[in-house]
Amino acid sequence: MLSSWTGLVKSGERGVGVVVSLSDDGGKAPSAEALTAIVADDLKAVNGVIVERMQSPVALIPQLASHVVAAGGKRLRPMLTLASARLCGYQGRRHLSLAACVEFIHTATLLHDDVVDESSLRRGRAAANEVWGNQASVLVGDFLFSRSFELMVEDGSLSVLAILSRASSVIAEGEVMQLTTTNDAETSETAYLEVIKGKTAQLFAAACRIGAVVADRPKVEEEALETFGMNLGIAFQLIDDMLDYSAKQADLGKTIGDDFRDGKVTLPVILAFRRGDDEERKFWRRTVEKLDQGDGDLDHAIWLMNRHHALTDTVERARHYGAIARDALGIFPESPVKRALIELIDFCIRRAY
Amino acid sequence: MLSSWTGLVKSGERGVGVVVSLSDDGGKAPSAEALTAIVADDLKAVNGVIVERMQSPVALIPQLASHVVAAGGKRLRPMLTLASARLCGYQGRRHLSLAACVEFIHTATLLHDDVVDESSLRRGRAAANEVWGNQASVLVGDFLFSRSFELMVEDGSLSVLAILSRASSVIAEGEVMQLTTTNDAETSETAYLEVIKGKTAQLFAAACRIGAVVADRPKVEEEALETFGMNLGIAFQLIDDMLDYSAKQADLGKTIGDDFRDGKVTLPVILAFRRGDDEERKFWRRTVEKLDQGDGDLDHAIWLMNRHHALTDTVERARHYGAIARDALGIFPESPVKRALIELIDFCIRRAY
Repeated sequence: MLSSWTGLVKSGERGVGVVVSLSDDGGKAPSAEALTAIVADDLKAVNGVIVERMQSPVALIPQLASHVVAAGGKRLRPMLTLASARLCGYQGRRHLSLAACVEFIHTATLLHDDVVDESSLRRGRAAANEVWGNQASVLVGDFLFSRSFELMVEDGSLSVLAILSRASSVIAEGEVMQLTTTNDAETSETAYLEVIKGKTAQLFAAACRIGAVVADRPKVEEEALETFGMNLGIAFQLIDDMLDYSAKQADLGKTIGDDFRDGKVTLPVILAFRRGDDEERKFWRRTVEKLDQGDGDLDHAIWLMNRHHALTDTVERARHYGAIARDALGIFPESPVKRALIELIDFCIRRAY
Repeated sequence: MLSSWTGLVKSGERGVGVVVSLSDDGGKAPSAEALTAIVADDLKAVNGVIVERMQSPVALIPQLASHVVAAGGKRLRPMLTLASARLCGYQGRRHLSLAACVEFIHTATLLHDDVVDESSLRRGRAAANEVWGNQASVLVGDFLFSRSFELMVEDGSLSVLAILSRASSVIAEGEVMQLTTTNDAETSETAYLEVIKGKTAQLFAAACRIGAVVADRPKVEEEALETFGMNLGIAFQLIDDMLDYSAKQADLGKTIGDDFRDGKVTLPVILAFRRGDDEERKFWRRTVEKLDQGDGDLDHAIWLMNRHHALTDTVERARHYGAIARDALGIFPESPVKRALIELIDFCIRRAY
């Protein structure tokens, strides 16, 4: 194990103070660098597949797709496929096009999400729907989604097709469920978990599982990688949702409060609402349900969250899922790629600080 | 052959007058009834699969999906799969779930089209996006699309998966291409044909082809059914586009001029624009490109179309593709289902009168 958390100290109402001991790497913060280095060559090949296969005689398609795809992002999901295949000792080339499939599905959902959320920014650039309109974003999303299935068919594994078609359904279910929890301050933690499992964690899980499938490993390894991906994905989304209210994010010049303004009910709101008194709940109902927000409301929301340790406890929850992800990898022998995957868990959670 | 067209007589500038002789069935107009009767039991089973497989624990999904799916429509595409399988002598049950796949893909594209077109009506009812919002329509479309691939994976045929994933990409390409031709009066007939091949005919072709695939028939029959479906689909869309300017449609109380108001450049506009003089082209540029439309413009557009026989010639073009569709079926022995499919071609074109 590269690093471990020794504790989380709640340091007063307005701060998210945390003491972290990274015991066995001399205090170096966990990063995605080890993983990035291991999959670097493969990822380059995947990028080649992505660029090649998003081509179409209809010029608007590669134009719009490359705006999103080339904008980059972390390529976290295809990296998970690549690393999982390596962890399973896979030596072939099939994981390259399957990693591209995973990224195409992810990109398609981003395009549709931006239409659904009426976003104007994506990865720091103008969102595609702002540049080319909602119409093109919906349709190019459909194209990338279809192209992903074409690539899977070329690969020829019905198991992979089953995993990724199922994942796609569950993603859509998660997104629809999110619509129904938006503006409902009484959303339960269970319902929230179902939403983030669907909209985020399912694709992490599928991306990892297909690494074992191409390597033709036994079911127990497929399931271990699925569990790893699912729990990593949950932890990742929990931290994402916490960061939307984080002073650190604000310090970095990133916008905060997007979810608040949209009335999205994420775990920090759920915990603050449930732990609050009647007056506080009135505040949440006004701001998050009725979207009746004024100056200072976001600050007050964050103040309430800190008062009830809603942000620190969101990180605690993430650590719980991170621990499950880590244990899921227990059946695999030690290796650089295994260490890199475990460091990735820590890195995903470490983003909170 | 149940019926045949003996000629098309242009009867003055404002009418789409046609003399039709239905020589060998006593003048009975061609209909879809024979086909409907042949596939009736199968279609009932398909409807069962559709209702069963659009279920989800997320209640909004079956609610919205059933609004569109249950609204019915003609179920033309799944009927093509059922009839093609029968034409190939197929006796099993696989065609039922594959016909449901075809309808799911069609429904997903309808949901996304209504968002893209900002439609308020679909099949005479409020469009789903009007009732539940664009967000839900986009996401439930994604769900049905994914569910369709799940069903194909359960069926287990990589050939079917290849045909329908390819068709889905081409549909998206056709729809994106349509975006780029909208408001461009100089769109060529070739570009228009590519659009309607993609957005409509490709799914007709795929629906027919998989009938031969489940029946495990030789490639030549697969290709014959694909050609039949493709050309039937082109003819179908040509007539649809012509009907948007048709006095008959207006007489039936249906709205006309939707494409005109949206600035969609369909064959009637293309022919009238190309055959018109400078003054007329100015009219088309103002109304269709700039969407600067006033009272009487739609009437004038129809008057110009009739002046240049743009509507009758759109029907002529449809008859050409209908003839190719008919000949494609030549390699199959005579049978009630073959006769019903040929009558379907005539019926699709007959809608024009």
